[in-house]
Amino acid sequence: MKILFLIPVCLSLILSSCAQRPEPCKSPPLLEGALTAFIPGQHLRVFEKFSYDAYGQNVRVRAVGKEGSETFFVDRLLLFREGISYEIHYRNQTCVKTALKVRFRHIGVPHDAHFLDQMVLGSSSILGQGLLVNNWNGTAEETKENYLLTFTAFGCVPLYTIDFTQKGELSVMTSFFDLVEGIENPNVFIPPSFCDSVEVLPAKEGVMTNSFFGLL
Amino acid sequence: MKILFLIPVCLSLILSSCAQRPEPCKSPPLLEGALTAFIPGQHLRVFEKFSYDAYGQNVRVRAVGKEGSETFFVDRLLLFREGISYEIHYRNQTCVKTALKVRFRHIGVPHDAHFLDQMVLGSSSILGQGLLVNNWNGTAEETKENYLLTFTAFGCVPLYTIDFTQKGELSVMTSFFDLVEGIENPNVFIPPSFCDSVEVLPAKEGVMTNSFFGLL
Repeated sequence: MKILFLIPVCLSLILSSCAQRPEPCKSPPLLEGALTAFIPGQHLRVFEKFSYDAYGQNVRVRAVGKEGSETFFVDRLLLFREGISYEIHYRNQTCVKTALKVRFRHIGVPHDAHFLDQMVLGSSSILGQGLLVNNWNGTAEETKENYLLTFTAFGCVPLYTIDFTQKGELSVMTSFFDLVEGIENPNVFIPPSFCDSVEVLPAKEGVMTNSFFGLL
Repeated sequence: MKILFLIPVCLSLILSSCAQRPEPCKSPPLLEGALTAFIPGQHLRVFEKFSYDAYGQNVRVRAVGKEGSETFFVDRLLLFREGISYEIHYRNQTCVKTALKVRFRHIGVPHDAHFLDQMVLGSSSILGQGLLVNNWNGTAEETKENYLLTFTAFGCVPLYTIDFTQKGELSVMTSFFDLVEGIENPNVFIPPSFCDSVEVLPAKEGVMTNSFFGLL
């Protein structure tokens, strides 16, 4: 009889623990996918394909962008452990190596972010027609600038990030899509041989480290 | 032996038919949920809870908005078959009835919309971490204004709509969330009794029918 009483109590405890307040989280350590970023202050729109390896602290980004009416293409490899950023130009087999003085950041919801609310993008009525997401906000430690984040409730996959300037104006809007867990070709994190003999330039000033995904 | 040969042929036919070019579609006929709309030209931000019944051609919208620094609340019932729009004020038991001269529009992707691309919001690696969506664009028949739409690939559930002015400027941005199929309380489509004796005013000029979801 006691057991019959205990079953619903245990069930309700399990359910309430499932539905508890979401906690800040780290995204999967190996991710590949695409993002678009919009930086209104610089009239800049960027489309990026990226590979992200939190184990090795490596990021590879191929970006196509439009700054005003000018189009650009960048192929960048960031090896955080080695402390070098590679700008790779396959066409003329050249390479620009720059010291990378910023620490690696995991993609995820920062530990001090504030949970705003949970919502379903689309519909929760039928499987495959909706996505349960959490919204967060917070202030970046170094820059004191605010951000808004949307991550999936299950798996902590990034969807949207919005960074604001200290004046509260929109700084960077990023949306992520077509993400997969894992790295299809691990060679993306190995610099091409024509980079070997190139000297490392000192770290650039003003590298956009204030944005949550600035280095992406 | 022939059957063994036919099985993979049939399977590949089924798969290729699943992955064919998406077709314009109608959303589920009974929907409830929320949306936020942003109308930059009017410095207007609106949060709406809506009930949508395509069978009966009824829409109920409760909207809270901010126009500049002013906050407003609107409770509107649109009965398209009856041709009346009700603005309901429960607090003082008053009602404004206006003729509704526009035809009911199904939520969905218009038949002449142009398929742009398919993407996964979030990740496709694990169930529940991503949402397969289709992007569409097109030009509204009456106004010749362009729009961009994002709907779920399965179920044709609306996610985002962006309308542009004829000059190509942003007109209305709408994002849908927390949608469920079905109407929780069918009474939302029945006007309160204090509306009965109210006279119907002639249709308003300049009602926002140009926006794809203008009437929502």
